[in-house]
Amino acid sequence: MPFQSFSTFNFQFKMAIRILVTGGTFDKEYDMLNGQLAFEDTHVPEMLELGRCKVETEIRNIMMVDSLDMTDADREVILHNCRSASENQILITHGTDTMTETAAFLAKASLQKTIVLTGAMIPYKFGSSDGFFNLGSALAFLQTLPVGVCVAMNGRYYDWDNVRKNKKTGYFEELR
Amino acid sequence: MPFQSFSTFNFQFKMAIRILVTGGTFDKEYDMLNGQLAFEDTHVPEMLELGRCKVETEIRNIMMVDSLDMTDADREVILHNCRSASENQILITHGTDTMTETAAFLAKASLQKTIVLTGAMIPYKFGSSDGFFNLGSALAFLQTLPVGVCVAMNGRYYDWDNVRKNKKTGYFEELR
Amino acid sequence: MPFQSFSTFNFQFKMAIRILVTGGTFDKEYDMLNGQLAFEDTHVPEMLELGRCKVETEIRNIMMVDSLDMTDADREVILHNCRSASENQILITHGTDTMTETAAFLAKASLQKTIVLTGAMIPYKFGSSDGFFNLGSALAFLQTLPVGVCVAMNGRYYDWDNVRKNKKTGYFEELR
Amino acid sequence: MPFQSFSTFNFQFKMAIRILVTGGTFDKEYDMLNGQLAFEDTHVPEMLELGRCKVETEIRNIMMVDSLDMTDADREVILHNCRSASENQILITHGTDTMTETAAFLAKASLQKTIVLTGAMIPYKFGSSDGFFNLGSALAFLQTLPVGVCVAMNGRYYDWDNVRKNKKTGYFEELR
Repeated sequence: MPFQSFSTFNFQFKMAIRILVTGGTFDKEYDMLNGQLAFEDTHVPEMLELGRCKVETEIRNIMMVDSLDMTDADREVILHNCRSASENQILITHGTDTMTETAAFLAKASLQKTIVLTGAMIPYKFGSSDGFFNLGSALAFLQTLPVGVCVAMNGRYYDWDNVRKNKKTGYFEELR
Repeated sequence: MPFQSFSTFNFQFKMAIRILVTGGTFDKEYDMLNGQLAFEDTHVPEMLELGRCKVETEIRNIMMVDSLDMTDADREVILHNCRSASENQILITHGTDTMTETAAFLAKASLQKTIVLTGAMIPYKFGSSDGFFNLGSALAFLQTLPVGVCVAMNGRYYDWDNVRKNKKTGYFEELR
Repeated sequence: MPFQSFSTFNFQFKMAIRILVTGGTFDKEYDMLNGQLAFEDTHVPEMLELGRCKVETEIRNIMMVDSLDMTDADREVILHNCRSASENQILITHGTDTMTETAAFLAKASLQKTIVLTGAMIPYKFGSSDGFFNLGSALAFLQTLPVGVCVAMNGRYYDWDNVRKNKKTGYFEELR
Repeated sequence: MPFQSFSTFNFQFKMAIRILVTGGTFDKEYDMLNGQLAFEDTHVPEMLELGRCKVETEIRNIMMVDSLDMTDADREVILHNCRSASENQILITHGTDTMTETAAFLAKASLQKTIVLTGAMIPYKFGSSDGFFNLGSALAFLQTLPVGVCVAMNGRYYDWDNVRKNKKTGYFEELR
């Protein structure tokens, strides 16, 4: 691969990406009437516009859950959406707490698709979020990585079977 | 490549990336005393921190110029920095107006390195900038693309010899 | 008063204002490690700097509490700080839920000082906060209103005995 | 006035304020296609909404000029708008460079109205602007100051005949 010319990738420029929104910190907002964090609608479309993104994307808001509350039934819904999507590149926005569990769940289905999960440690609407940076990197990894499942956080990607979230620091890290 | 497993890329997780800062809209600020746009210092380090980036990077601020003012002598300086860097992955932040000219200039040197140029249409400090998204995607492309020179804008990457900036829309597009 | 010239107020330009910070939504932050809202330090000093404020202020961070948790013992502490301050103009940043209770509590002491309470419906750090606007208006009311206690929210001031927070809308309104 | 009760001001709670927008740094935006600062539309309405402002306001966008380019003919237009407004409280957003000239110009007409000029050193859209704070304080001064003309900047108000902008620091200051 190191000597491949870029032109072999050119067909990818026209690729369409399916984006599955599942909630997570990424999309949380502050509800001023009760002082709690809550979900309203996803910010992915406005983020893609702000990023002046010209990748063809098809966005589906399939659930709005805190990933600590995500069940295997929810993960079946995500898997079903990955399988039935006409696109072969799939971006999933997801809470960080169980992002690696969902990645492992999806990997076991061995779909012939590239699936990248990403999220944020701070809500996009809170001004100092990592979410916009993560979305940019996740979309880029999706256009260049082969079939498989990975997590895109902290400017890097991590194979689904070699990643955990360090709960003390909030950073993702490799197992080995 | 479609059937390669991710693990072949694992060595890349430890890669270090050289970041060359050259100025451009990306790093412009508002000078309140004269009402003009001007350069102070680069925002790349604070952006990497906000993005919670864990990619090993080595940042060099080699010039602070508007890319319309960039000369071939400046491009020689950039090329020299690419060649002499110990890293094989190089990110260049650059004004968008002549980003493609610099990409072509660097490509002619045929370095055995991956070089990605990125920038912003709106200054990072102005609140509604595409720069943070572009930085995330550029870093991701750098970790996954083979040797060559490309431009990372609008969530995509463009080969150096197949890209122009559309001055009317501000979007990058392929020539063919 | 309509025909008084402004110059009679000129002595006020040199006035010093005591700012008492008590917490509230105004100063809440997002704790990324547990996904909860929490207090760290007050943002009042950085807000005054961003506002390029040249009013002489003396800031005391006397507590950091959610106003729903504020007790009469806490209000005694606030009153003590109002009374013992050498300044005659006192700004109190306060949670909105019991701001009017604290205003009434302080009014009963009949201090010969001008006391203005203000706060925010959305945390200052969350990007779309009303807090910065409220701080500007509260400081202005403090420099122009006579002795008494009032609440400054929604661009207006409300006498302590003629105001309630409408919990359904989040706006303050007069009782009569 | 120090011993007046607040209730004498209560009628003011219902006051309507005329806001005259004239441009200035306050409303400047970044034009991404040519890299210049330019005017599009005023941000005053969205700022009042973000500030959750409940003061009754009537906004007129009468010109969009850099105050360095403002002529006496422009000032006649502003004066005409002040005179013909049905409201007695008038807020003027204005560039800082000649804000004091316009204040003096208006003062000479001796209208029986309260007129407050304000602006910003950094455009509202640029994320770190003083404009939102200034708007809050200007609205508050307008509701509490008697007939006359003043400048509201830096959290304070300055009589029209006792103020200048220090071009070196960007702060307003009294002449004596």
